[in-house]
Amino acid sequence: MESSINPSISVDCVVFGFDDTELKVLLVDFIKDAQSACSSLVNPERKLPGSLIQEKEDLSHAAQRTLSEMTGLNDIFLRQLYVFSDPDRISKSEDINWVENTYGVKVHRIVTVAYFALVKINKSVLQRTIEGIARWHSVLNIKHLAFDHKSILLKALEVLSQQLLNEPIAFELLPKRFTIRQLQNLYEAILGIEIDNRNFRKKVLNFPCIKPLEEKEKGVAHKPARLYKFDKLMYEKDIKQKMKYNLNFIRISD
Amino acid sequence: MESSINPSISVDCVVFGFDDTELKVLLVDFIKDAQSACSSLVNPERKLPGSLIQEKEDLSHAAQRTLSEMTGLNDIFLRQLYVFSDPDRISKSEDINWVENTYGVKVHRIVTVAYFALVKINKSVLQRTIEGIARWHSVLNIKHLAFDHKSILLKALEVLSQQLLNEPIAFELLPKRFTIRQLQNLYEAILGIEIDNRNFRKKVLNFPCIKPLEEKEKGVAHKPARLYKFDKLMYEKDIKQKMKYNLNFIRISD
Repeated sequence: MESSINPSISVDCVVFGFDDTELKVLLVDFIKDAQSACSSLVNPERKLPGSLIQEKEDLSHAAQRTLSEMTGLNDIFLRQLYVFSDPDRISKSEDINWVENTYGVKVHRIVTVAYFALVKINKSVLQRTIEGIARWHSVLNIKHLAFDHKSILLKALEVLSQQLLNEPIAFELLPKRFTIRQLQNLYEAILGIEIDNRNFRKKVLNFPCIKPLEEKEKGVAHKPARLYKFDKLMYEKDIKQKMKYNLNFIRISD
Repeated sequence: MESSINPSISVDCVVFGFDDTELKVLLVDFIKDAQSACSSLVNPERKLPGSLIQEKEDLSHAAQRTLSEMTGLNDIFLRQLYVFSDPDRISKSEDINWVENTYGVKVHRIVTVAYFALVKINKSVLQRTIEGIARWHSVLNIKHLAFDHKSILLKALEVLSQQLLNEPIAFELLPKRFTIRQLQNLYEAILGIEIDNRNFRKKVLNFPCIKPLEEKEKGVAHKPARLYKFDKLMYEKDIKQKMKYNLNFIRISD
């Protein structure tokens, strides 16, 4: 019985963060060889944090290990995004060489499972990511990535936009206490559009799970704005209530 | 440089159908060897339609090929469901033997990418699936499946339930013209609960994308009920309108 030549399997992680104004993503420098290292220092190519999976490791473990090794972030919630399996997705000999030299194994085809995660960029996260080799980059400024990682990033952005419209994931990217302006900035940054301030404020204030606090923001040049928090428990109770009536999709036209 | 022992990669397809009363899924008989074939005839083990991927094939092609070979169904819309990658998911020697004999290659670990699809069980689909080796089985009656296919089915059911509540996928499983009773049966079958008739009817009739027709159902013993259709164009226009305001998630508490 012949041995089949199986593809190698890798994981690649799209970690999104938000710093009050911009949507960011964690990338690592991708330096192919000594020859290109010089030009790389000026304008390095970049890639998503990723790794081939190990022999006795499932995919989610591989993704967590990769993040921990490359970004210093542990225990962040990763979701499976999509599998990229085009037989020619990694076929340039220099790319194959890089993978073979990095991992010390022969590869002929790589199927990658992309994961994505949302993190609040606060002081503690910044401190931890500085200790890793990955760096935060503004999503808007990313023109090119190594391999097919730009396609993976675009797929992640597509899914992020969809989820932003259907689930309260915005609050995964914001500080616990936030202003309406911050929430609006986040929506504008992810969806890449401008939103009418008054309409947005009105809609948000009508949403009972977003609760006004007594506090206002501090240390700002402008008039300090009120802070709000997202009441997750109330949201989940409300979801369960709606599920009982099995008609959430009808929300669309409420 | 050593060759890495890569996992084999397979696809498994969860094809759901609805026949007016029950949620069904396509399964193939799983006969391990001649010895067990006898007892298998009485109470055969079953599995999802699936296949190892070929060397020059991406995953979606492999899934379409598998469906076409095993179920006679072509060009049905498949979505990636989830990757199952536990290193021990297929580790019983009889299971490994079956895979090796079926595909004529050595395997030591199999990572599988599950796909799922929704089809309307009508005469033409029934005719085509009868020509394949897969058969429709009532989801409620499935106690056990080969390998970890029961877990894959449960994951598909979970995703189907979620999507049923958030997207108008119910209409993928119903005939073009349907009664409110059929729609309610579908919700009850997938979610596994009973729904109050009057509430359901009231909610559905309030939903402008579900349009009453002049026709009524024919050839039924009871008083024929009015037929409805789902206006997909209107729904999509409405979605776009909502997306413009970026606040769909706020629907939750409309």
